[in-house]
Amino acid sequence: MIKYQTTTYPNWNFVEFELDANIEPADLKTIELPDIKKFYNKGVIISGRGPIWLYGVLIHHFHPTRFVATFEPRLNAGVVIETHSADFQVGDLINL
Amino acid sequence: MIKYQTTTYPNWNFVEFELDANIEPADLKTIELPDIKKFYNKGVIISGRGPIWLYGVLIHHFHPTRFVATFEPRLNAGVVIETHSADFQVGDLINL
Repeated sequence: MIKYQTTTYPNWNFVEFELDANIEPADLKTIELPDIKKFYNKGVIISGRGPIWLYGVLIHHFHPTRFVATFEPRLNAGVVIETHSADFQVGDLINL
Repeated sequence: MIKYQTTTYPNWNFVEFELDANIEPADLKTIELPDIKKFYNKGVIISGRGPIWLYGVLIHHFHPTRFVATFEPRLNAGVVIETHSADFQVGDLINL
């Protein structure tokens, strides 16, 4: 259903998801999510083609990390949307 | 920049945002967000045309409510993405 590829940078993990079929809301009940324990010590940038509600689940899942950003292809950058770190503020761009 | 229209139902608020101009990530630093105190006692369904990172900020903002859903126009329904309520589970559809 969903695969994740994580690329690790000094201050964040870039997590790209890929769907191998159409996803429906009910799939959220059984979807595999990355092991959050591996992500606590850095921020996360989420990337991938999928519906907003899938992003919503992933954003909530990664909430305990240092910050959460979503990848904006138009800017080739992550956009910080929530943060527990003084070094990254909401609205900051993380250029990739 | 952004306007919100809230429609109240017995168990949730339907919050529709409308952008009057292109929004850029830096706008997230100053964007007006709905007064969360008015939303604690129900769930929230977020609707509107905007980038994923704007949804991300709104999803995070509404995190303290009973549940958060995003509106899926294709299904004319909200999709629950996070919940503090035993009555609403992730992946549930809320038909509108």
